[in-house]
Amino acid sequence: MLNGQFPPFRSVQSMLAIPQPDGARTLVSRISGAIKDQIAEGVYPPGARLPSSRALAADLGVSRTTVTAAYEQLAAEGYLEARQGARPQVPKGLKVEPPVTRRDVEAIPARLSAFGRRLADLPRQHRPAADAPVADFRYGDLAASDFPMLMWKRAVDAAILRRPSRLQYGDPSGSPELRSALQGYLWRARGLRCDPDQIVVVNGSQQGLDLCVRLLLDPGEPAVIEDPCYAAARDVLLAAGARLVPRAVDREGMLTERLPPARLAYVTPSHQFPLGSVMSASRRQDLLAWARTCGAYVIEDDYDGEYRYDVAPIPTLQTLDGARNVIYLGTVSKTLSPALRLGYLVVPPALAPAFRAAKRLADRHTPGLEQEALADLIAGGAYERHVRRVRRRNGERRAALLTALRARFRDGVRVVGAEAGLHVVAWFTRFPMDREAMLVAAARAAGVGVYPVTPLYDPASASGRPDHPGLVLGYASLDGRDIARGVERLAAAIEGVAAGRPPRTG
Amino acid sequence: MLNGQFPPFRSVQSMLAIPQPDGARTLVSRISGAIKDQIAEGVYPPGARLPSSRALAADLGVSRTTVTAAYEQLAAEGYLEARQGARPQVPKGLKVEPPVTRRDVEAIPARLSAFGRRLADLPRQHRPAADAPVADFRYGDLAASDFPMLMWKRAVDAAILRRPSRLQYGDPSGSPELRSALQGYLWRARGLRCDPDQIVVVNGSQQGLDLCVRLLLDPGEPAVIEDPCYAAARDVLLAAGARLVPRAVDREGMLTERLPPARLAYVTPSHQFPLGSVMSASRRQDLLAWARTCGAYVIEDDYDGEYRYDVAPIPTLQTLDGARNVIYLGTVSKTLSPALRLGYLVVPPALAPAFRAAKRLADRHTPGLEQEALADLIAGGAYERHVRRVRRRNGERRAALLTALRARFRDGVRVVGAEAGLHVVAWFTRFPMDREAMLVAAARAAGVGVYPVTPLYDPASASGRPDHPGLVLGYASLDGRDIARGVERLAAAIEGVAAGRPPRTG
Repeated sequence: MLNGQFPPFRSVQSMLAIPQPDGARTLVSRISGAIKDQIAEGVYPPGARLPSSRALAADLGVSRTTVTAAYEQLAAEGYLEARQGARPQVPKGLKVEPPVTRRDVEAIPARLSAFGRRLADLPRQHRPAADAPVADFRYGDLAASDFPMLMWKRAVDAAILRRPSRLQYGDPSGSPELRSALQGYLWRARGLRCDPDQIVVVNGSQQGLDLCVRLLLDPGEPAVIEDPCYAAARDVLLAAGARLVPRAVDREGMLTERLPPARLAYVTPSHQFPLGSVMSASRRQDLLAWARTCGAYVIEDDYDGEYRYDVAPIPTLQTLDGARNVIYLGTVSKTLSPALRLGYLVVPPALAPAFRAAKRLADRHTPGLEQEALADLIAGGAYERHVRRVRRRNGERRAALLTALRARFRDGVRVVGAEAGLHVVAWFTRFPMDREAMLVAAARAAGVGVYPVTPLYDPASASGRPDHPGLVLGYASLDGRDIARGVERLAAAIEGVAAGRPPRTG
Repeated sequence: MLNGQFPPFRSVQSMLAIPQPDGARTLVSRISGAIKDQIAEGVYPPGARLPSSRALAADLGVSRTTVTAAYEQLAAEGYLEARQGARPQVPKGLKVEPPVTRRDVEAIPARLSAFGRRLADLPRQHRPAADAPVADFRYGDLAASDFPMLMWKRAVDAAILRRPSRLQYGDPSGSPELRSALQGYLWRARGLRCDPDQIVVVNGSQQGLDLCVRLLLDPGEPAVIEDPCYAAARDVLLAAGARLVPRAVDREGMLTERLPPARLAYVTPSHQFPLGSVMSASRRQDLLAWARTCGAYVIEDDYDGEYRYDVAPIPTLQTLDGARNVIYLGTVSKTLSPALRLGYLVVPPALAPAFRAAKRLADRHTPGLEQEALADLIAGGAYERHVRRVRRRNGERRAALLTALRARFRDGVRVVGAEAGLHVVAWFTRFPMDREAMLVAAARAAGVGVYPVTPLYDPASASGRPDHPGLVLGYASLDGRDIARGVERLAAAIEGVAAGRPPRTG
């Protein structure tokens, strides 16, 4: 029975009645929470007195100890003043805030820095995964069956069980074991020589890029990018406030003639993303000479350097430059898994302290477990054996894709960039540019996920735009049969567009 | 025998003679590399012709195919022009760069952004690990024996074996499973209610802080910090160009009277770092009212909120504020391991899209394996059981430390901040401030790693500086015996300083 002197404890009783997740909150905190709500709602205004603990315990059917504990909690938080023998009182000076609803909170606008505002203004060109039951040619995904699950599990287990004497933060530049293993790997696999102290282990090449841009470019400064360009790199530069200098790409990679002075250039010389050309030796020399002349840094993103099919390797820019102005960016996102978040930078010696400090500030260091596992696998040779295995598999996928495209489209499609990497660009030479969205939609309606090349071009530069629709076709996540079926469906869908038929669904 | 017409292939032969790591580089690339060096050194100037492949093969004792392959490689890289029937020629227009030495490269100064320069100018107050054979009271380290090795291994193994259909980038905000598990955990453990879409999983609280400051503060804008303050937070703010507004700390936490308007405040209300006070309810209300008035965000770093000993929990600022202006920062660095790099933010709903975009830009997402493992452990209850276990162990360590300090120093030491967390501050009230460095040196000489409190104070603000030397004593990595021995040695070392004896070594 409720005690007539006091406002009714509706909310306490209703809260007690609501089923709570097991062990979610104790009775004490549910009671103190309900009283707090009532104080906030003005049921007990400042200066009002609450029931005695005995009376409230009787009303609620709980022990007096429970109520006393709730009152003590409220007193500790400043909601009540308790005096020996007197009923507890809401302090006269208590500033009572009306309860805040989720709607109130959502109406409060975000107050962002210039960086935050630039980030919010980025064009939304992130490719959502398509609903593609037949085949999804999304670039960047890998087949789960290629992941060396047992090998990785063994290496991770060994790392967990290799217990150190105490747990502490690791080296911001990365574990010495991994950096030493990477030094050897880069020399063997890419002919790149460096000291371990030039290596900074990062959470994938995305973090490597972000650290480069934070450390090397101020808002308003110019940065050279390829056009078309890897979207996430452009996003990093735009969010940093860079003034973009996009340069067209041809069969020899990015055009390097008459480059204006800039703070940095972001390039993918081993396999241009997305067009797939390999930067020629003379363009490489030009780019490095430009960097030396204007004091720019060149970020060399070797995102898929492990995958070459019919071509001889060309030395990295980092090697040609002798580590003066080139920052080399490598990753295991294309050889192990993008979800591992492991990559590495090779920086000029003079920059190593700055990158180390920036990595420490950004997140102290890359997680220890993944670093230890990768170091073991590289040092024992298992990583390179794995890379050879997935390179062979991806070579087979590539052959299946090229065969299927030739069989289904004949000369209706021009394929570029197939010499290396895990994707090609297919140009649909029988269609004008303005049909690109229609082709993509028709393919998706037929259950095939395809991704247009247009969003990767700089929206501001009119020259060098393609004449025909192009699709970036990533094949690393598909098996040969899916590739064949996907291309077959794609061909049917595109034939439908040519014939003016409405897209069929799935 | 060397062919007289050509400069001698010294470096080729010496390279061939140098033992190479197994499979390090093929013979072809060693030969082409050596020729490239000779071109760079001017042995073959632009326009010069190289030996025929037959002649060079004979000289080197290798097959002609090998030399032909090396020549083709050099031609592909632009170092040679090959014409049918003629000896290969160094292109007349080749720009020859003298080889770059490591010393040349190191002499090139770093060209940094304003952020990079501020980072380089940060005061070096990072505490190097002491050589402390008796006991290292370094704050932040945990005992390896507290790490739930088998539990973590099982969870990680399950995550590795739970193979998805394809490998792709994860959700930038964190896996839905982990965010949902954290929502329940935060409610149960901290009384904090939020939607999973307010949670952003980050690589430890360091990255959380860095993202906050990047998104919310522009260079030159004011930021309120506690004085003394967690050094890494101050570093993030200084590197971002913040104008610091340090506020003294007393027994009720940071002083909140007459706070000037600012963009944000960074506080540790549950257990002030380093002094250990718990922010009172009225100060909490004042701080939140200030934030609402001036439109500031409050970053609530709950770095050790799991560890409370004799005190009732006080609701988080986030709860009191109703998620309007508070960003809550949590971590598993104090419950599992600092090397895991796992933390989480709870942000106001209006900020969630900005944090998601910033995390995506910074490193796409936190590694998948750790996220899955932690989600499983929280959802199954194992994480909370583990937290209770380590809380009990740390309670025992704390008791051992307080007992030892009381026994050895009696009223020569005043201990603060012992109600919560994993460290205390011990003030040596018999010494003047200027003896701090001497106490630290004497302790280290006696094999005890101790860390002074002074570097955590704002160097610019003269008021509120301590009168006596203080040491931050972290105890989470030590067992009871080490703690007792460490305090005993510390007492002997400090007695030596008082008596004017030179420090004894180890």
